Amino acid sequence: MKKYTLLLCSLFFLGSISAQDKTTDEDAFFIRSIYDKALTDGRAHDWLMYLTQEIGGRLSGSPEAAAAVEYTRQMLDSMGMDTVWLQPCMVPHWIRGEKEQCRMISSRMGTVDLNGVALGNSIGTGKQGVSGEVVKVESLDEAEELGKQGKLKGKIVFYNKRFDQKQVSTFAAYGGAVGGRVYGPTIAAKYGAVGAVVRSMTNKTDDVPHTGSTVYRDGHECPAIAISTMAADELETALETENVRLYFRTMCENLEPKRSYNVIGEIKGSEYPDEIILVSGHLDSWDIGTGAHDDGSGCVHSMDVIHLLKQLDYKPKRTLRCVLYMNEENGGAGANAYRDSSNLRNEFHMAAIESDRGGFTPRGFTAEGDEEIFNDRFKQMIAWLPLLEPYGLEFKKGGSGADVSKLRSQKGLLIGFLPDSQRYFDYHHTPADAPDVVNKRELELGSAAITALVYLLDKYGLK
Amino acid sequence: MKKYTLLLCSLFFLGSISAQDKTTDEDAFFIRSIYDKALTDGRAHDWLMYLTQEIGGRLSGSPEAAAAVEYTRQMLDSMGMDTVWLQPCMVPHWIRGEKEQCRMISSRMGTVDLNGVALGNSIGTGKQGVSGEVVKVESLDEAEELGKQGKLKGKIVFYNKRFDQKQVSTFAAYGGAVGGRVYGPTIAAKYGAVGAVVRSMTNKTDDVPHTGSTVYRDGHECPAIAISTMAADELETALETENVRLYFRTMCENLEPKRSYNVIGEIKGSEYPDEIILVSGHLDSWDIGTGAHDDGSGCVHSMDVIHLLKQLDYKPKRTLRCVLYMNEENGGAGANAYRDSSNLRNEFHMAAIESDRGGFTPRGFTAEGDEEIFNDRFKQMIAWLPLLEPYGLEFKKGGSGADVSKLRSQKGLLIGFLPDSQRYFDYHHTPADAPDVVNKRELELGSAAITALVYLLDKYGLK
Repeated sequence: MKKYTLLLCSLFFLGSISAQDKTTDEDAFFIRSIYDKALTDGRAHDWLMYLTQEIGGRLSGSPEAAAAVEYTRQMLDSMGMDTVWLQPCMVPHWIRGEKEQCRMISSRMGTVDLNGVALGNSIGTGKQGVSGEVVKVESLDEAEELGKQGKLKGKIVFYNKRFDQKQVSTFAAYGGAVGGRVYGPTIAAKYGAVGAVVRSMTNKTDDVPHTGSTVYRDGHECPAIAISTMAADELETALETENVRLYFRTMCENLEPKRSYNVIGEIKGSEYPDEIILVSGHLDSWDIGTGAHDDGSGCVHSMDVIHLLKQLDYKPKRTLRCVLYMNEENGGAGANAYRDSSNLRNEFHMAAIESDRGGFTPRGFTAEGDEEIFNDRFKQMIAWLPLLEPYGLEFKKGGSGADVSKLRSQKGLLIGFLPDSQRYFDYHHTPADAPDVVNKRELELGSAAITALVYLLDKYGLK
Repeated sequence: MKKYTLLLCSLFFLGSISAQDKTTDEDAFFIRSIYDKALTDGRAHDWLMYLTQEIGGRLSGSPEAAAAVEYTRQMLDSMGMDTVWLQPCMVPHWIRGEKEQCRMISSRMGTVDLNGVALGNSIGTGKQGVSGEVVKVESLDEAEELGKQGKLKGKIVFYNKRFDQKQVSTFAAYGGAVGGRVYGPTIAAKYGAVGAVVRSMTNKTDDVPHTGSTVYRDGHECPAIAISTMAADELETALETENVRLYFRTMCENLEPKRSYNVIGEIKGSEYPDEIILVSGHLDSWDIGTGAHDDGSGCVHSMDVIHLLKQLDYKPKRTLRCVLYMNEENGGAGANAYRDSSNLRNEFHMAAIESDRGGFTPRGFTAEGDEEIFNDRFKQMIAWLPLLEPYGLEFKKGGSGADVSKLRSQKGLLIGFLPDSQRYFDYHHTPADAPDVVNKRELELGSAAITALVYLLDKYGLK
């Protein structure tokens, strides 16, 4: 009866208001009702406010991460899913400690404070800090080259690679620059540098430093800090005319790993329970912000998929699973635990969707997968485009996400939600990644877009 | 030589970085170079900062509007256009005066201050303000009905129509609600109401009132104020249980019309000088904000089209005209003057583009035109889509803009730039429409999108 009323209401709106969306097709009709529900009765924004304003930054191992696990478990539990459970994983426990110090010491300009933040997982400098002459490089290759010539010993290596502003996708620019942050410090350490400093990963010129993970390899470790793009510009300018020293102090520490959890909720499929459709985001976030876009948005998108389908009384034929991963930011322990457990149980993820590019206006989805199956499955999705194009969505070949891509060996389709990317790196890994920069409607349209795709995947499957 | 270097640089980027944008086609290549230039050397953002931060709100007849005329004239003049001129028009000169007061007087809740702003062009209340019992209506028809029954006499009519959140395009929601603001007060006056109050035109629930024009017809005038959506909710709730009075005071005045100007720059076409391609925005803005999205963005987009084509050494075959209209917000005097002069000279605008939907990420263009020519011309544009789709652009049938649509009788194509609409009405006609809510890259992508379309229109024409 409730359903019938809903249908009538929706028909009314189709007929009278949304001339632009008029179709007679049942799928188009259901997708329209998903959008209507998301834009008027979605829960994503409320959940996001709680995760960011009440709980805050949720770095793996922190009390806030534990609070986020418990909060989202309760929320999934309240939605009448068949099963909700916590999946354990051991996560790194890195803490930032006291606020960082960073200074450029120039004979021409005197001492200039630079805004910087320690890179995640990096070792601290201790109270004395580190000090050294700055060697600027534009790439990992250049660092390797100088290192082999013995020119990095005792130095501080400055990875200065900029975002390529010409890239329309800011993620492409990020991909082109982030190597310096991830592997720069370990290369610097390998050749005897005492520290590494990295130009922040952003399109913007401002005085806000961006944190993010660094990865040490083969035991080569040195302290590492990211400085704002304005600070990097200043350092670069000084280096044009003189040798410059840098002093920085980071009091971060790697503590003992801690037990944490992925939060998982499942609705068993009525016809094909062995074909899993996964929607996901990651619960952990950097400590200096509150993880609104990265990746509170992905979590509440995924939870809202369940909420919307439940509200619309939709019973999935395939098993629908919502996974809120732990530890995407600095280790991937949650994704590893999920993959290992899933592979052990011989599960098959027909489609695994990740939302980890923020809560901006949806532009579509990227998809990838095992070569053997990809082209064929992708073609099947392309056939659904006429239903999604009215909402500004498209499908592109491309990476899915750090967490779901670990399910590749199951030979299902791996899908990344693709929102507009222009503002993402204005906020990414900074205090600015806070709820005030998430637009409620843009967030809700993301929930709707993912739900619409889940509906089509569930109804038609991928053969 | 300069051009050759540029080509080589662009080739380098095409080859090495932007695999996603790789084509071999000359047009694709030129459009890629437009985007490269816009994202690295566009001037739109600097101009917008000047218009908003240095000059500020630019309501017709104000000193700031005059400053904006002079500033943009100088900027166009500095770009080496063939001709730059000012086209006179007589504009209304409405001033807001002292800050508005608005109070709900309830016997249950006492007196509650409501945040409100006078509607543009409305008459003021005088120092005594107006006071009356509130009659809530949801539509103009309902007001007419109650008016005919004598139920509005001495009352304050409350136009409470909400944005329909289900509309994916917020402009569609605006279109569905704005009638109350535009014609509500004059209908109220016609039936003897002492004032009109309007729920603000926005998707958001907050305490920021949105101004905007009202239009009096047949001499029916009464004072009119827009209140924030939170204030409207409060008023609505109170009205559910009791009769409520409203007091408001607006000290606005309509002064004598003033002379103002459209700012126009032209590059004469080398082969088809009689076929005009127009790019445009409007210089005037509401007084309470600084008109960053509405419509500083459209002005700097249009100016940047000239800058980018000049930088790329492009010589148009058709006449390219940049028009910065005066008085779009409360009268359209600039657009009328431009149309009249153009028609008198028997000009033909082959295509007239308006950017007046903000500086957000581009989604494409809407187009309209005289029935006789439209379908055929639109088809010719559609054929260019493969060149624009890589940048996320599409063409839709739909309204162009308040200024260029006046050129309809010339039977050219009328085109509206279509950016993402989700955030527009968060800021529209409020103090929040300020430079901090314009993202530099989103703005630059707008310049690039319009320039790309102008290039195709110029190269291929529309037959």
